Amino acid sequence: MKQTESWIDECHQGVRYGLKGHTIHEENSGFQQITIIESQRYGKGLLLDGCWMTAELQEKQYHECLVHPALCSAAELKKILIIGGGDGGTARECLRHKEVQQVDLVEIDSRVVELSKEYLPQIGGNAWEDPRLKLNINDGVEWVAKSTKSSYDVVLVDSSDPSGPSEGLFNESFFKHCHRILRSGGVFGIQSESPESFHQIHIDIIRLIREIFEYADPLYGHVPMYPSGWWSWTFAAKDGSRYLNPYPNRAKEISKECEIWSTRWQKGAFESMPAFIERELN
Amino acid sequence: MKQTESWIDECHQGVRYGLKGHTIHEENSGFQQITIIESQRYGKGLLLDGCWMTAELQEKQYHECLVHPALCSAAELKKILIIGGGDGGTARECLRHKEVQQVDLVEIDSRVVELSKEYLPQIGGNAWEDPRLKLNINDGVEWVAKSTKSSYDVVLVDSSDPSGPSEGLFNESFFKHCHRILRSGGVFGIQSESPESFHQIHIDIIRLIREIFEYADPLYGHVPMYPSGWWSWTFAAKDGSRYLNPYPNRAKEISKECEIWSTRWQKGAFESMPAFIERELN
Repeated sequence: MKQTESWIDECHQGVRYGLKGHTIHEENSGFQQITIIESQRYGKGLLLDGCWMTAELQEKQYHECLVHPALCSAAELKKILIIGGGDGGTARECLRHKEVQQVDLVEIDSRVVELSKEYLPQIGGNAWEDPRLKLNINDGVEWVAKSTKSSYDVVLVDSSDPSGPSEGLFNESFFKHCHRILRSGGVFGIQSESPESFHQIHIDIIRLIREIFEYADPLYGHVPMYPSGWWSWTFAAKDGSRYLNPYPNRAKEISKECEIWSTRWQKGAFESMPAFIERELN
Repeated sequence: MKQTESWIDECHQGVRYGLKGHTIHEENSGFQQITIIESQRYGKGLLLDGCWMTAELQEKQYHECLVHPALCSAAELKKILIIGGGDGGTARECLRHKEVQQVDLVEIDSRVVELSKEYLPQIGGNAWEDPRLKLNINDGVEWVAKSTKSSYDVVLVDSSDPSGPSEGLFNESFFKHCHRILRSGGVFGIQSESPESFHQIHIDIIRLIREIFEYADPLYGHVPMYPSGWWSWTFAAKDGSRYLNPYPNRAKEISKECEIWSTRWQKGAFESMPAFIERELN
């Protein structure tokens, strides 16, 4: 029997973004409400606590932009840490880099992983079977606190907005641990919300990361399903703003199969800071 | 009596973008359905044939990006042509340039102008009283066909999507006239749709303009209320890609009061072409 199609919306500050489709699974995991939908436009999609996370045909605009600025510029790529990212998309993009030897994926909610594997297998792709992936169902805040100094080449924070299970991933203590566990020559990357719909959070994240790491810069892109569609990721490093300069050999290999990311796109995305943000940060 | 608040949406390809608010005026002008709303998040807004055009607190993201790349780089700014733009926002941004002596605003639908003046006076701002503005209620296609060769320093097309009254503003004949009436040293600019939600139209516009003008490039930005929020404007010129290089003195003066536009932002916005568009255009 064909399901009745209706609108599934995220509402934020008097604005809504909706996809036509139907819900195929919904549950409360104890951490959050998890909803899996089938949409007409973007295939299957995932919402956490009513907020759009990802969808099969709109996920590269997020995952490529979080992963490749970091992994194309870090000095080495032996050991990568992903906090969050239970849908597997960030891990999949990391594992496209052949130099990567180990990816620790630390997701607090096992049900996000299980449901993503079941309903959104394309997003994780080959990552779930890759022996380099170490899946840890664990609290990211505890994980970084317990990790050894200088133990990761890249640390990526792939979280939902700073409330609910992601609340502890946007404060000074957490960022200081990320800095501590990052090797010299390493790169830190985090989704840093919308300059439009989460304006103050966006500014606060950049300021805080700039205080802790010596070098940090936001990059601007587009994820239509997120509030305002205008999104950002912030990258940081200890030894100069190396994230601005992808290694040409890695970039050439990776961008061949990218939808969004290229060296050209990245250069523009770091430059395209709107005037109102530039004034506030200076 | 307080109006009941509900959602006003634009639906496009199984996606909807809605603002919470209420309709304050609606009519059919003969050319199109015109709707004026009051929204909680972005103040008063305008829809034409059910599509979002502009809103008081979300209009700079469109108008600054269409106007300043052209007006900061054209050799002279004596005479400017705007096709469409009945809300007055493009004219207002043009008239901020003190070198401008005349702006011909050619809008086909007098009711768009009248209702914008009545309900959205902030968008036109001082433009409506500026003696340099010449308002012409006329068909833009006819206007460019009848205009003298090399009579404009800048030609801007500020239209709705290529259907209804805007259909004739996206074809070879129209662009050839725009090229003909542009002075050497002049710059042509047009909103060129979303690379995501109007993908093929976006590609077609760029290709066609590149055939007619020797130099043309798209610039990417964000207008949350438009389909996907990811938008583009394409600029063209006859004597090299001069639109890439704003005159520093003009840029400094103009960007002081811009929300989005700056020389830095523009540089990034031209560079940030996504990989899938770059592959298609090459």
